[in-house]
Amino acid sequence: MLCETVGVSTLHPAAAPLSFLLGSWSGEGRGAYPTIDDFAYREWVSFRHTGKPFLVYEQRTADAATGAPMHAESGYLRAVGDGRVELVLAQPSGITEIHAGTVEGRTVRLATTTVGVAPSAKRVDALERDLTVDGDVLTYEVRMAAMGQPMTHHLAAELRREAEG
Amino acid sequence: MLCETVGVSTLHPAAAPLSFLLGSWSGEGRGAYPTIDDFAYREWVSFRHTGKPFLVYEQRTADAATGAPMHAESGYLRAVGDGRVELVLAQPSGITEIHAGTVEGRTVRLATTTVGVAPSAKRVDALERDLTVDGDVLTYEVRMAAMGQPMTHHLAAELRREAEG
Repeated sequence: MLCETVGVSTLHPAAAPLSFLLGSWSGEGRGAYPTIDDFAYREWVSFRHTGKPFLVYEQRTADAATGAPMHAESGYLRAVGDGRVELVLAQPSGITEIHAGTVEGRTVRLATTTVGVAPSAKRVDALERDLTVDGDVLTYEVRMAAMGQPMTHHLAAELRREAEG
Repeated sequence: MLCETVGVSTLHPAAAPLSFLLGSWSGEGRGAYPTIDDFAYREWVSFRHTGKPFLVYEQRTADAATGAPMHAESGYLRAVGDGRVELVLAQPSGITEIHAGTVEGRTVRLATTTVGVAPSAKRVDALERDLTVDGDVLTYEVRMAAMGQPMTHHLAAELRREAEG
């Protein structure tokens, strides 16, 4: 019930500038950070809408070699007017992120205004996320300040749009 | 792909104290707050697991009279040991919540350690959430401090476990 596609709703006009993200995407990414070994992952992302002025965002990754589940996150990409967007999400690692930024053409640029850290989670100080769609290819980069490091490249991936099921 | 049930995984031992929440629930709730009119809603909740030490939490509500979508939230309920739990979630209204609390028997008691508010969202200062399961009935209460009000009763609902689909 919760996960079924809401296909009957019309896209909210305020969300129209984000419509290029709608759908399911999958592909490969690579992670790096000064404090850890590089890693490769497989990723699934979906953006869907419910007729309201935001997109529902869901993501998960798996180890590229073993298939073991790695990261996940879920949240909402809000269209708040005048080309401005806000992303709110939660991660099972105990982190919440609130980003503010812009959508220009088919590129979304975001930087955190608030990072929440659960009492038992590892602290993250700030993040930046850029997403771009070119045809049926979505690429993104995530930069992160954490573990005493300044804002530093962390993740990059290239995903392809999946055929509608 | 993202929403399919991960039925093959074994529940992580650390998540066993939360297993009474697993499944899909639906029912009716009522909202109240000193600054707004009372309201009634229909609600759907699911808790599922992926074999890791947390439950995936998804929720949405609709106006009890008109069926119009109202609230939604999604996140993760983390079992962090010694009967302690953490809830992290995001809402399309631009709010993130991080709660810490306890699970004792079939009752989870939570209070926010961090509430994140997106730049364009309405500020919420703090929340408390209690959930209890008795047989196939889940009841919860949410208390909220916002809009200049101290911690005050806000939401209560009674949900029934749905048959597995």
